[in-house]
Amino acid sequence: MVQQLISLLDWFGICIFSVTGALVASRKEMDIVGFALLGSVTGIGGGTIRDVLLGVQPIFWVAQPAYLVACVLVALATFFVAHILHHRYRSLLWLDAVGLALFAVTGAGNALAHGAHPIIAVAMGVASATFGGIIRDILGGESPIILRQEIYITAALVGALVYVLLTGVGVSADGAVFAGFIAAFGLRATALYWRLSLPRYRARGGADEPY
Amino acid sequence: MVQQLISLLDWFGICIFSVTGALVASRKEMDIVGFALLGSVTGIGGGTIRDVLLGVQPIFWVAQPAYLVACVLVALATFFVAHILHHRYRSLLWLDAVGLALFAVTGAGNALAHGAHPIIAVAMGVASATFGGIIRDILGGESPIILRQEIYITAALVGALVYVLLTGVGVSADGAVFAGFIAAFGLRATALYWRLSLPRYRARGGADEPY
Amino acid sequence: MVQQLISLLDWFGICIFSVTGALVASRKEMDIVGFALLGSVTGIGGGTIRDVLLGVQPIFWVAQPAYLVACVLVALATFFVAHILHHRYRSLLWLDAVGLALFAVTGAGNALAHGAHPIIAVAMGVASATFGGIIRDILGGESPIILRQEIYITAALVGALVYVLLTGVGVSADGAVFAGFIAAFGLRATALYWRLSLPRYRARGGADEPY
Repeated sequence: MVQQLISLLDWFGICIFSVTGALVASRKEMDIVGFALLGSVTGIGGGTIRDVLLGVQPIFWVAQPAYLVACVLVALATFFVAHILHHRYRSLLWLDAVGLALFAVTGAGNALAHGAHPIIAVAMGVASATFGGIIRDILGGESPIILRQEIYITAALVGALVYVLLTGVGVSADGAVFAGFIAAFGLRATALYWRLSLPRYRARGGADEPY
Repeated sequence: MVQQLISLLDWFGICIFSVTGALVASRKEMDIVGFALLGSVTGIGGGTIRDVLLGVQPIFWVAQPAYLVACVLVALATFFVAHILHHRYRSLLWLDAVGLALFAVTGAGNALAHGAHPIIAVAMGVASATFGGIIRDILGGESPIILRQEIYITAALVGALVYVLLTGVGVSADGAVFAGFIAAFGLRATALYWRLSLPRYRARGGADEPY
Repeated sequence: MVQQLISLLDWFGICIFSVTGALVASRKEMDIVGFALLGSVTGIGGGTIRDVLLGVQPIFWVAQPAYLVACVLVALATFFVAHILHHRYRSLLWLDAVGLALFAVTGAGNALAHGAHPIIAVAMGVASATFGGIIRDILGGESPIILRQEIYITAALVGALVYVLLTGVGVSADGAVFAGFIAAFGLRATALYWRLSLPRYRARGGADEPY
């Protein structure tokens, strides 16, 4: 049951991240096959790293090619409709926020389902949520989203933590999933909307020479 | 038999990609050990990702260190002869095209040999053909070749598709390998020579604000 | 016994690389969770790639989450004390040199312990020693340390080679570990201090056109 819910949310997250990959492809004016590649790598990248780190074989999309097909179709559709969006980069940030929140929970949930330690489950939530976007930005030659000022990794961490803690204390699966998603998305959305950031490291006197 | 042919072409592709890695090292004026590292990572990178994704253990070059040794030797040789090339970047593009076409076919062939679904085999052909170059460009601080205007990923996709389709309808192994290679290399070479590209995504009115 | 020594040095190396990741986070003025992510990825990145390539499951920090916890704690501590360092980038280079030398030896030692061929063990030493820093620099948007002028990859190679050769001829484990570390660190430290580099590839007439 909980696995079905997590699997459903995983599907959503994969498709949404595929859109963000395709939007980066649109910003780089790639061709349609470039959209398919960048969409796929972004959609399945985070989960692939999670499965490789957990030693899950076969990797989810190798076991079920439908995930890959969905990414490609979503990216192709984005090729034709991306111009409708008035602010492609802003759309990318908000879709990325939804994907981040979904994967923070499903990454942690999948790790727990494979018997991982709760600490590892939290780490897998963060890795699933952030690495798809990291790979997308590196391949697309964009400035990495993790370096942006607004709270980002923290949102994934909080979502994964909430989910793992609530699961640990016996909250129902639906409740834990819902709370984790709301925590991650709420935090990221708040940060995006009001441009909030945690206190950042500030170079102090004598410490910022280039060499 | 087919495995022998694919294995032979894999050797060619690995050595050719090692040369392209060494040529990037030459453009960055690295030392000879840098040539060996960048050549090796480029030569065996695509196949390593393929094996990790397919769950093949041990990875091909861990099982047979001769692949790694060949990459290193080829990269060292390139250190001494790269200056003979009049256009190192142009040579790199053409060698990369040969490697791309070889790996599109052998990546798909290896995946089929490990029992992968045809869709996954095509994906592995594309991944084998493109990820060595992607890693090379990232490590070498070059602009990623996948972002270049001329048809690139498409050539790998077409080569892998042709190979998998022909194998699926029962064409002889030699014929499928040959047709896949010609399709991928022909397409990439045509694109390089005439600077052809597929229609690219174009930002339209109101959609290209930076934020 | 030798495994205990290698495991101890691995702990040192992981914590030191975590500091270097946190120092890059400080240069990018990330928040404290960014420090934790970049510290962790740098601390455990090289060993993770080594384990994935060798097919070791579970990966060391998935088996023992204490490694991950240590990286996070070290990175958090760095958030609060990094300003004490007068030259953060210079400190980063020197700590990176210590980590490089430790991982060159322990990466090779772990590979031998898993039955790898000596050539593969040397490659794993180099990969463990360099890939944590490579990932750190890519995620942090820094110029990759492997492209710096002073001897770098060579130091890892020499350290791993010394360790594997001495182990092969039957030198005691302590002796081989010590000699390998001294060789790698000594070479890198000498290079850093006197800005030594190996002869680098130089573009010659007619060979350096951009296209």
